[in-house]
Amino acid sequence: MDLKAYLQERSTLVEQALQDLMPAKEVYPPQIHEAMHYSVFAGGKRLRPILCLAAAEAIDKDYKPLLPVACALEMIHTYSLIHDDLPVMDDDDYRRGKLTNHKVYGEGMAVLAGDALLTYAFEILAGYGQKYEKQAVAWQVLREIAVAAGTEGMIGGQVVDLESAGKELADKELLTYIHTHKTGALFCVSLRAGALLAGANPEELACLTLYAEKFGLAFQITDDLLDVVGDQKKLGKPIGSDTKMNKLTYPALYGIEKSRELVQEAVEEAVAALAKLSGETKPLEFLLRYLLEREF
Amino acid sequence: MDLKAYLQERSTLVEQALQDLMPAKEVYPPQIHEAMHYSVFAGGKRLRPILCLAAAEAIDKDYKPLLPVACALEMIHTYSLIHDDLPVMDDDDYRRGKLTNHKVYGEGMAVLAGDALLTYAFEILAGYGQKYEKQAVAWQVLREIAVAAGTEGMIGGQVVDLESAGKELADKELLTYIHTHKTGALFCVSLRAGALLAGANPEELACLTLYAEKFGLAFQITDDLLDVVGDQKKLGKPIGSDTKMNKLTYPALYGIEKSRELVQEAVEEAVAALAKLSGETKPLEFLLRYLLEREF
Repeated sequence: MDLKAYLQERSTLVEQALQDLMPAKEVYPPQIHEAMHYSVFAGGKRLRPILCLAAAEAIDKDYKPLLPVACALEMIHTYSLIHDDLPVMDDDDYRRGKLTNHKVYGEGMAVLAGDALLTYAFEILAGYGQKYEKQAVAWQVLREIAVAAGTEGMIGGQVVDLESAGKELADKELLTYIHTHKTGALFCVSLRAGALLAGANPEELACLTLYAEKFGLAFQITDDLLDVVGDQKKLGKPIGSDTKMNKLTYPALYGIEKSRELVQEAVEEAVAALAKLSGETKPLEFLLRYLLEREF
Repeated sequence: MDLKAYLQERSTLVEQALQDLMPAKEVYPPQIHEAMHYSVFAGGKRLRPILCLAAAEAIDKDYKPLLPVACALEMIHTYSLIHDDLPVMDDDDYRRGKLTNHKVYGEGMAVLAGDALLTYAFEILAGYGQKYEKQAVAWQVLREIAVAAGTEGMIGGQVVDLESAGKELADKELLTYIHTHKTGALFCVSLRAGALLAGANPEELACLTLYAEKFGLAFQITDDLLDVVGDQKKLGKPIGSDTKMNKLTYPALYGIEKSRELVQEAVEEAVAALAKLSGETKPLEFLLRYLLEREF
């Protein structure tokens, strides 16, 4: 199986699970359920759920039972995008080439749709935990997801990002903080959740956590590079929208060549982290190749 | 002990537990933790946590171990107020006589502070569930809280409220839907969580659920009445702000006298629901008297 076929197969699987899990659009009150569907099915790559499933596979466990958890992670990711795109935050009109949630449903509904997806993710996780055999592990996963999504994780990153907009672009520590928190924390917990629920031992968990950190870093740098050198069609948002806003980015701080080297380095460290795992690590390797083959 | 002393004692207890549980204001990034503190400690009555504790007492159980769950409910309530007050929602500048969160910290930060409180509530619940002896009950409570806060509960009520603003004021079913969902669902789950974690049997749970429904109804009508006949100082927001916005209210639909009768009726039904409980039901009776003694 090649990279493209792999990503296609997994994202179709996640897509179907999301269709099965999400409340139907027609459920009263329909406005909110439509708004939730709009962003959940707006063409996301499903990277976080795919990482979660791939982590279970790398521990040599069937990944299919993890689909509800994988979907909950995608819902949390989607909620964060809806809120980030709001005019009072990053003020984006387009994402993945489609109008953002608030441009279609209004800002009030977009706030509520984000709230609802976050809340629904925990409802899904509770339903999953209720039936999962190792109760302590299920609680740990739920708690780690809440921490990763909170002020010590994703929200913390967004806060610092919001506060740094328009300020000096010279602080490497700040850039690292923003990215390890805003995007890194959710990547990391996606892999850890998959690993924990697959019964990973502490050593395996440590390997996958390291992989996750390197994956997150490489993802963010390629994202920044795409914004500088990509074209609007590929990314679905105006080129240079981050630099326009005077945001901290890797190319702005390190230059394009050095940024590319940093991606390469992170990918190599991630590959090395997989060496000690006994299960099928090809999917996790595929996902690194995906990062390198994003066009920039 | 009289009503005032009782409410004082319980809210002090909740206040202290919230101080212990909330991340310190100084934790990085401090902006978000300050914004969270601002609204959590903005003088709320702590009704939902107090109801949660009182439910445990009515089952004849020590209520103190339930404090983290009670606090998580208050955090969810606070998040909903922060988001409801946003300009893109109800657009309120004041609440309880103080500036609303977005007036102090800006709209972007207010969105994030709400998100963070919701997320943190689930982190607290996960930590609590992890240690609670009856695992199935803990999962049920977490799941019920997520459902009550979601689109079939609180968010659903807010969506319909938002959509009905400025429309015809003649729909009693719509009014009932909004209030049983926007405020009723969280009251209800506060009592149910307290009852379930205290080990209530199905009959006790049914009694407390009925009490909760009647309490929620009486609360909402008195809230509407206060808005019509109260004074600005007591409520901390401009008089008539809901009617000004052309919102559905009980006095608008039923008139003031009939609304008062409906409160009385709901309170009597709530008292009747307590009859079958074996524990200390005085606190739950106190809370009904609190509703009746709110000045209107």
